[in-house]
Amino acid sequence: MSLLENIHGPEDVRALPPEALDQLCAEIRAFLVEALAEHGGHLASNLGSVELTVALHRVYDTGRDRLVFDVGHQCYTHKLLTGRKDFTDFRDLGGLSGFPKPYESVHDAFIAGHASNSVSVALGMARARTARGADYHVAALIGDGALNGGMAYEALSDAGHSGEPLVIVLNDNGMSINESVGGLAAMLGRMRTRVEYIRFKKWYRSNVLPRLPGVSALLGRTKNWLKERIIPENIFDDFGFEYIGPIDGHDVRKVENAVRWARDYGAPVLVHVITQKGRGYAPAEKAPEAFHGVGAFDAATGVPKYTGEDFSSVFGRTLTELAGEDDAVVAITAAMKEGTGLIGFQEAYPDRFFDVGIAEEHACAMAAGMAAQGLKPVFAVYSTFLQRSYDMLIHDVALMGLHVVLGVDRAGIVGRDGETHQGAFDVAYLASVPGMKIYAPANFAELKSMLRKAVLVDTGPVAVRYPRGGEGLFLGDTSAEPCAVVRQGTDVTIASYGTEINEAIMAARMLHDGGVSAQVIKINALSPLDTAPVLASLQKTGALLVAEDVCAAGCVGEKLLAAAAENGIGLKATRLVNLGDGILEHGEPMKLRKKMGLDNGSLAQAVWEMLHGKDKT
Amino acid sequence: MSLLENIHGPEDVRALPPEALDQLCAEIRAFLVEALAEHGGHLASNLGSVELTVALHRVYDTGRDRLVFDVGHQCYTHKLLTGRKDFTDFRDLGGLSGFPKPYESVHDAFIAGHASNSVSVALGMARARTARGADYHVAALIGDGALNGGMAYEALSDAGHSGEPLVIVLNDNGMSINESVGGLAAMLGRMRTRVEYIRFKKWYRSNVLPRLPGVSALLGRTKNWLKERIIPENIFDDFGFEYIGPIDGHDVRKVENAVRWARDYGAPVLVHVITQKGRGYAPAEKAPEAFHGVGAFDAATGVPKYTGEDFSSVFGRTLTELAGEDDAVVAITAAMKEGTGLIGFQEAYPDRFFDVGIAEEHACAMAAGMAAQGLKPVFAVYSTFLQRSYDMLIHDVALMGLHVVLGVDRAGIVGRDGETHQGAFDVAYLASVPGMKIYAPANFAELKSMLRKAVLVDTGPVAVRYPRGGEGLFLGDTSAEPCAVVRQGTDVTIASYGTEINEAIMAARMLHDGGVSAQVIKINALSPLDTAPVLASLQKTGALLVAEDVCAAGCVGEKLLAAAAENGIGLKATRLVNLGDGILEHGEPMKLRKKMGLDNGSLAQAVWEMLHGKDKT
Repeated sequence: MSLLENIHGPEDVRALPPEALDQLCAEIRAFLVEALAEHGGHLASNLGSVELTVALHRVYDTGRDRLVFDVGHQCYTHKLLTGRKDFTDFRDLGGLSGFPKPYESVHDAFIAGHASNSVSVALGMARARTARGADYHVAALIGDGALNGGMAYEALSDAGHSGEPLVIVLNDNGMSINESVGGLAAMLGRMRTRVEYIRFKKWYRSNVLPRLPGVSALLGRTKNWLKERIIPENIFDDFGFEYIGPIDGHDVRKVENAVRWARDYGAPVLVHVITQKGRGYAPAEKAPEAFHGVGAFDAATGVPKYTGEDFSSVFGRTLTELAGEDDAVVAITAAMKEGTGLIGFQEAYPDRFFDVGIAEEHACAMAAGMAAQGLKPVFAVYSTFLQRSYDMLIHDVALMGLHVVLGVDRAGIVGRDGETHQGAFDVAYLASVPGMKIYAPANFAELKSMLRKAVLVDTGPVAVRYPRGGEGLFLGDTSAEPCAVVRQGTDVTIASYGTEINEAIMAARMLHDGGVSAQVIKINALSPLDTAPVLASLQKTGALLVAEDVCAAGCVGEKLLAAAAENGIGLKATRLVNLGDGILEHGEPMKLRKKMGLDNGSLAQAVWEMLHGKDKT
Repeated sequence: MSLLENIHGPEDVRALPPEALDQLCAEIRAFLVEALAEHGGHLASNLGSVELTVALHRVYDTGRDRLVFDVGHQCYTHKLLTGRKDFTDFRDLGGLSGFPKPYESVHDAFIAGHASNSVSVALGMARARTARGADYHVAALIGDGALNGGMAYEALSDAGHSGEPLVIVLNDNGMSINESVGGLAAMLGRMRTRVEYIRFKKWYRSNVLPRLPGVSALLGRTKNWLKERIIPENIFDDFGFEYIGPIDGHDVRKVENAVRWARDYGAPVLVHVITQKGRGYAPAEKAPEAFHGVGAFDAATGVPKYTGEDFSSVFGRTLTELAGEDDAVVAITAAMKEGTGLIGFQEAYPDRFFDVGIAEEHACAMAAGMAAQGLKPVFAVYSTFLQRSYDMLIHDVALMGLHVVLGVDRAGIVGRDGETHQGAFDVAYLASVPGMKIYAPANFAELKSMLRKAVLVDTGPVAVRYPRGGEGLFLGDTSAEPCAVVRQGTDVTIASYGTEINEAIMAARMLHDGGVSAQVIKINALSPLDTAPVLASLQKTGALLVAEDVCAAGCVGEKLLAAAAENGIGLKATRLVNLGDGILEHGEPMKLRKKMGLDNGSLAQAVWEMLHGKDKT
């Protein structure tokens, strides 16, 4: 590690002689495998982009130029090269984030986490630079998977036409998370094998065209016309970009030269770089999708240290069962086949499985079209990414009351991925979608029952939301009721849902030991919300605490309080415990829960203070 | 009108001899100009698509095949040909809708209103057909403006690759609403003038290629390889579509032949049709953007019957003033330059005006990039279309607390455009965006003050929401306070905001005549919500009515009730009057207001019932 340990900032990278770069890259790779084996993280994409990142830092001064990452989980080398080498508490509370964060370093130009925004952001920055008369450079680094997202296309169309000097570096590993799907991927695939085409084109332009008098006679135009119309290269040329590529992304000097040329070109340029996901670590090269986002693993073999059953796997298995019972059931994912537990479904029903790539808008509108024609589509998607589909949920699904089922994975606190990934908003935005039913299972048994009801029994739009990870101590299936009293009590009403119910029950037990009798109500259907059981309890207790790991605006607690007021039930004490504005950094879920007062100890303490007035101090 | 009056359904269109079609089209045009002169509507796009629609009905049996409109405001000819010729109450309550509605006719395959969803929906339907073993045809009709939206691109990539037989008809009028912008539009522009290119390509393929031994020697591949790689035609080929075009969209027989061929081709086909917006009506041909969506006008001259000042024009003028005071201010629109009142801004500051086309996602993320680098971007957008940006508002704007200002036009009831356009959800979804401030001006003076504060004084994300149309009787500027008591009273508290405050004040006056003293509180800042003035009033009155033209979930009334409960204020009577689930059909705004109980008479009645207990019956 002799080179890496002397890199304290990108200026040190730029000072290295070119012949030292390969060694630096090797040291970075070794560092990454070791650090991620201990802490988990996005291994494969970072291994694939080591040389590319080194090259970018030799061209751009990221303290002043603006380098915009897309998705951002491939930023580890960037962190290492910009003075962030302490991975001790990597992705945990107080430690380095796994994504670019402007609050962490001036070298992180913008937040990243959701895909396909980088071209838009970079164009905005480039336009700001021009409008303000500044002279820094702007570049976006986007993967082929993120390029599938519609926003990237909207931005490419605008950027290419704008003439603004900016560089889009396409990091094409032919994978995104799963293998890329769709026409765009096919096009990139053709471009990747174009070396012979480029050779041919050069020869053709210099040898054939000038010798074809018939061509110029027919056209009466210049070779430029020909270049534009007869030999358009691809969508990037079409949109007004100068295109360079494909370039070997593991050759630092080649990438450096191409990007430097692009930086100084003075107009929009797209640099197409080919990389290999998992590069340099045999287990990840063999199975890059398994090393996309990993937990801790054995560095020597790549074997994960723990693989238990979780909500995602139970979801996938249950959906496969339901598909066996009803051949109208189909599954949709937006490039999250592994994450949402759908591998088994795809194997069992390949013709009824649709991976649309990173395209949550399309996924949702397509599901609506399917439902309109008699299928029962189930879209499995992370809570935070479903935010992309909000308009389609209203316009395409809900206005027609179509039976589209959402498997809302990673609902609530997700933990180590941090603020861009917390499932903090789905309860608020889904409740505003007309006719949307929202179920919140607390364990695997309830997930099975609720998903079955959502798919086979219900009509109209239905969402089943469940968290990352496994179940807790509460294992009963209360799904038959919209609201279930899981513990009787007389002094205070505690309402909660999902796995947070475990904390609520534990808090009630602790309070019992302190002489406080808490009634615990588990809400199974968040919308429409049956407030009667909670109101009945409040008639008795006159005190309400609602614990939920979602943002405060539009939370269930707000609706319960409103219902109490509407029904003239006076309350002597209330407390809504939630994620506030919904912004919550990275860290172990239990630490975050505690930080937000959602762990059982904090809940018990809050009740104690409510009832004894100490919260007024 | 001898032909049109005998058309009772599409079978009658198919029965006509080809030589009668031009007359039918002329009759339809005359009908449209006359009907829209009286009722208003989307004139130019409908005049441009008469022949195209007639041709589609000769190819597709829309009672069985699925023809999916995009945006849908070009569906008037379709309505005429499918038994809907009574335009008496066109776009008013109980009359025909201006958009496709499956509840109106079996010939309307899907709802339309928001752009760029048709390819997704059609692909979903095609996949459902294949999965269910059915044999109907599926087609989508999309305009060049809607093609700019990212969802269309996501869907084209998936559809082209899928191999599913389906037809995308691209109605290219080179305009969308304004002139199309960006790289896609430039590409379509090149394709439009490609006739000579096609002629050249045919000649080239049959004459030049076979005689170039060097080519085949170098490549050692087939001509098919050449076709794919050396002469790719455009993005549609790239994505796996068979491409036909461009075709003269005003020649019924040519369009009919092309679409019929495409229908029977057995794979994804894109038919590129060129039409002229406003075709056949001189005033609209000259200024198609002025005849995009029109109110009533003089059929002979095309002169609008009324053009008064409205919130949009005041917004645009004020923003232009602010741009004069601060050169960091820039304006962004997503193809709604006229609708959002930005024509004057563009004229005054062309370099600081950005029309990104139909691309609300990109608009919002680009604004975030601009704000990150020191500009003060203002995105002017309709409430209903801003739903598309929900994720970008959270991820790109709010997580970094960037100062992006939203001019949320068409907030609340919009009227004649119906359920796909009502601004019913913005209060709910904007309130869930971390740190978002939401202002609700009730008149032009308040819009000016609030916009000035939002742009020049505030930090972080800010939304100013205002309705379609003009101001009411309340003309005072109360914007200095987050909440203003606009009428004192002791028996009941009425809270409201925006122009709905006019109804609340009128209701209070009516109640006064009936001996009820109502305190009226006008809420200026919906988020963060200062509940203190309302709570103080409730301490006195013990009764609350909240009137707002937004959906119930996440409404301000819910938050006020929750605040009352949280503060231990017992209420003897409450009533939240709003749009319920947010689905509200088309009609004159005042009729819709009355239907939802939001007019002053209904509000007064509701208070009367609240206080006298008649609502319990």
